[in-house]
Amino acid sequence: MFFDPQCIPCIINQAYNASKLFTNGNNELQLKIMKEVCKAVDGIDMNFTGPLFSLTIQSIVEKNLGISNPYESIKQSNMKRAEKYIPFFKMMMEASKDRLDTAIRIAIIGNIIDLGANHNFDIEYEVNRIASDSLDLSMLPIFKEDLNKSGLILYIGDNYEEALYDKFLIQELLPKKVVFAVRSKPILNDITLEDAKRIGIDALCEVIESGSIIAGTDLKQCTPEFLKLYNNADIVIAKGQGNLETLFDEKRPIYFLFKVKCDVIAKLSGYMLGKGVLLYNQNKR
Amino acid sequence: MFFDPQCIPCIINQAYNASKLFTNGNNELQLKIMKEVCKAVDGIDMNFTGPLFSLTIQSIVEKNLGISNPYESIKQSNMKRAEKYIPFFKMMMEASKDRLDTAIRIAIIGNIIDLGANHNFDIEYEVNRIASDSLDLSMLPIFKEDLNKSGLILYIGDNYEEALYDKFLIQELLPKKVVFAVRSKPILNDITLEDAKRIGIDALCEVIESGSIIAGTDLKQCTPEFLKLYNNADIVIAKGQGNLETLFDEKRPIYFLFKVKCDVIAKLSGYMLGKGVLLYNQNKR
Repeated sequence: MFFDPQCIPCIINQAYNASKLFTNGNNELQLKIMKEVCKAVDGIDMNFTGPLFSLTIQSIVEKNLGISNPYESIKQSNMKRAEKYIPFFKMMMEASKDRLDTAIRIAIIGNIIDLGANHNFDIEYEVNRIASDSLDLSMLPIFKEDLNKSGLILYIGDNYEEALYDKFLIQELLPKKVVFAVRSKPILNDITLEDAKRIGIDALCEVIESGSIIAGTDLKQCTPEFLKLYNNADIVIAKGQGNLETLFDEKRPIYFLFKVKCDVIAKLSGYMLGKGVLLYNQNKR
Repeated sequence: MFFDPQCIPCIINQAYNASKLFTNGNNELQLKIMKEVCKAVDGIDMNFTGPLFSLTIQSIVEKNLGISNPYESIKQSNMKRAEKYIPFFKMMMEASKDRLDTAIRIAIIGNIIDLGANHNFDIEYEVNRIASDSLDLSMLPIFKEDLNKSGLILYIGDNYEEALYDKFLIQELLPKKVVFAVRSKPILNDITLEDAKRIGIDALCEVIESGSIIAGTDLKQCTPEFLKLYNNADIVIAKGQGNLETLFDEKRPIYFLFKVKCDVIAKLSGYMLGKGVLLYNQNKR
């Protein structure tokens, strides 16, 4: 996909929100950060992706704040909010007639917890709609067929808190070999290796760093180990908008699981804002 | 008031919306406009006002679009939406036990029609809440006292469509001498002299251009005629956020009528987002 200029005001707004969070009402510093952030816009060309531009911007914010991982404490408090629904999800899974369907719904819902495109998220609202048609799982029969034939599954994670919900889906994919890929550095609330271990994903399956340091998967940044897996896996599952933006043009079959959280992704995916989707890139609308 | 850096992402977003409206999906042109707009951020200092920055930005957008008054057609279609409620307001006025109270409510509601801070407005939503406490008219008794003693009233208009609703209030102020001030050039959907004539405000009272070419009242830009009126009027009524931002620090008594449409104005005024307010600057909270 080509870069959508609509990502500029959105990402600048994210930068403002971060600068506001961590500057204790210091308007001069906020203005300084905004000026540097806006200067960086000049370097964008149509081959940029939103997540790549976001990395540039977040680096400027972090440099000015003098903090290397500003979202850490927010991730931890979000995690507490996310944990509350685990007992409910467990009951849903136990009562489910189609555990894979339910687990995918749970995993998609987790994608709402996003400090980038949608920092005013409401987990409860999503949970209440988990069984509704606000989720499009029409690709599920194809996914199931693929799953039956598959041996190796690469699961590209997205946000830390959301990964707690991904665990339900990972469990349904076992005993197939599942490898869970994480970012190689903290960016926004994206999941890192340390985060994955903290919530016990490494006890379920192998966890590797992808090499990507943006809030998505930039294959140019990825490690040979990740690329080998990416090329050889029978199924690739990619969570979230960031992975969708960066892998949408890829030819290899990928199942994208995400919530549509902005107009750019609505246009790209063909789904309405707010929709939760299992999108298969071999069946683009 | 000092410039609030939060205005930067908001005004950049307004510029994007304008560039999107008028570029027929030309992403390259949108990106070019965004780059120029972001470059202009470097020139901001803490003494800027939101409306002054907005003028800079809108000029860049207009230059790139090659249109001098891009919002003209939107103003006209908004006016059609605004007109629908006039018969209802007339009935309200006829049935009203306190016509000034009702007319002020109607005038405040009109302020929702804003292509700047709040372009996704819903007039019907506001009309349905016209008699509720979503409007704070606690300064009305003081206003009434002042009105009884006054001879000359300066009414600084804001948006074109909203001025249709201002007519109810102007009528209640008569037979006092009322002068209605408009912007000296089109900016966003702000009212101009031509606009005021088109909806017959000149048949009710004198209409003058203030000299201000921003979406607010920059006294440095204002004409001697306007300044004389501004200094000599017994009552000054200023409509909308833009006039509030630019006249908030003024010492002379001013009655501000506005809807709180963004966090910056919420912080400034002390009122919650969405609140409609008759604010008297001699009784700041």
